[in-house]
Amino acid sequence: MEVGGYNLVYNSLSFAIATFGAATVFFFAQRSQVAPAYKTALSLSGLVCLIAFYHYLRMFESFNDAYTLVNGTVEATGAQFNDAYRYVDWLLTVPLLLLELVLVMRLSKEETYSKGTKLALAAAVMVILGYPGEVITDPSMYGDRWMWWVLAMIPFVYIVWDLVSGLGASISKQPKAVQGLVSKARTLTILSWCFYPIVFVFPMIGLQADPGAVNPAIQVGYTVADVVAKALFGVMIYMIAQRKSDAGA
Amino acid sequence: MEVGGYNLVYNSLSFAIATFGAATVFFFAQRSQVAPAYKTALSLSGLVCLIAFYHYLRMFESFNDAYTLVNGTVEATGAQFNDAYRYVDWLLTVPLLLLELVLVMRLSKEETYSKGTKLALAAAVMVILGYPGEVITDPSMYGDRWMWWVLAMIPFVYIVWDLVSGLGASISKQPKAVQGLVSKARTLTILSWCFYPIVFVFPMIGLQADPGAVNPAIQVGYTVADVVAKALFGVMIYMIAQRKSDAGA
Repeated sequence: MEVGGYNLVYNSLSFAIATFGAATVFFFAQRSQVAPAYKTALSLSGLVCLIAFYHYLRMFESFNDAYTLVNGTVEATGAQFNDAYRYVDWLLTVPLLLLELVLVMRLSKEETYSKGTKLALAAAVMVILGYPGEVITDPSMYGDRWMWWVLAMIPFVYIVWDLVSGLGASISKQPKAVQGLVSKARTLTILSWCFYPIVFVFPMIGLQADPGAVNPAIQVGYTVADVVAKALFGVMIYMIAQRKSDAGA
Repeated sequence: MEVGGYNLVYNSLSFAIATFGAATVFFFAQRSQVAPAYKTALSLSGLVCLIAFYHYLRMFESFNDAYTLVNGTVEATGAQFNDAYRYVDWLLTVPLLLLELVLVMRLSKEETYSKGTKLALAAAVMVILGYPGEVITDPSMYGDRWMWWVLAMIPFVYIVWDLVSGLGASISKQPKAVQGLVSKARTLTILSWCFYPIVFVFPMIGLQADPGAVNPAIQVGYTVADVVAKALFGVMIYMIAQRKSDAGA
């Protein structure tokens, strides 16, 4: 691994630790500023960031165990960098993120329950189907990596389609003051989500790492996507909750 | 590195850890003492200090890994001192600091949003443009270091100009009881900010370190600037928020 790539991965992992730690504190502190109906959404935002904070701490440690930078040269210690942390994180956080969005819409109890369950389950299936592909780093096996990508894209497309069509109808029923913001949150979700399957195919389109080494393009790509999809998305959910609280909606 | 310089860097990093840890607790504890309109400003003060606390802990660790003081001699271990922590910190905290100032002014919703977004984006661009210059420590490349300094000064001047002119007009609309204090907070922001580009040019005006070693002038300079621009500035924001709460404004 080159020094430049090492520094990028190292600093982006630390950046994510700081961001998710601060975001966790922010969401729990600001929970007192929203109406009771939105406190659960704020709690979920805080939990998503807390879970991500934990996993980024672990990834940072794991990366430090796997590589050292001494006298300007990056050395692999032989210890394995544990890639699975990301997928364990997503298995927990992606369903919660979708629940946040559903909760802040304040649909009827039945709709909240059925939409929440469907989206959360689809998200879990998506993450589970992505993992067997992610661990394939041998270029001769990229056919299999593509296969898992296609399989994970089925629940992915279902979720995005549901956000576009299903939530679209609900947005028109939201108070005027937040319609624009809810629509932006939905766009942010869709755009940040689309980043993940693109990062997944980085190695197949030439953004390779040395065989068996950590791929900086993948690590930095997923980290940026996580910060947008979790922390920035949480801030939008908070703004929606606060405006709806002010409007008494 | 000389023993004197080593001790200065070591102790100033530890001083910053103590200051930012204490400041974080102070702002979250005192959040209950201000009116709801100012609680977000206090939360942001706390987050800025929490993020700085984290990065100073990391810098302290990194400095300890890079140097040891044994039998009165400073020895470089070969491990790299990670300079990037400061820039990762600023990328997160400088936009938040500007948001604090905007929030405590309590402008209209639209003004808060547009001014906050513009200033936060300009701050991020400024930090990103400064970093490529900061990592240049080879004196023969100082032409490039100057170039990045000039580029980063463009958003810097824009922000300072906006604080002087734009906030100037708003200050006259503040309650009489806090006009002086808000004006002082603005002056403190501008003065403490001007310190950063001066520290940046320290090596170019002769405050050199040994080649490849940590430069004590830069480390101590940035640490002092951070304590003033984050912790002391946060205390002023708190005083403004408290006086405005008392005045019912």
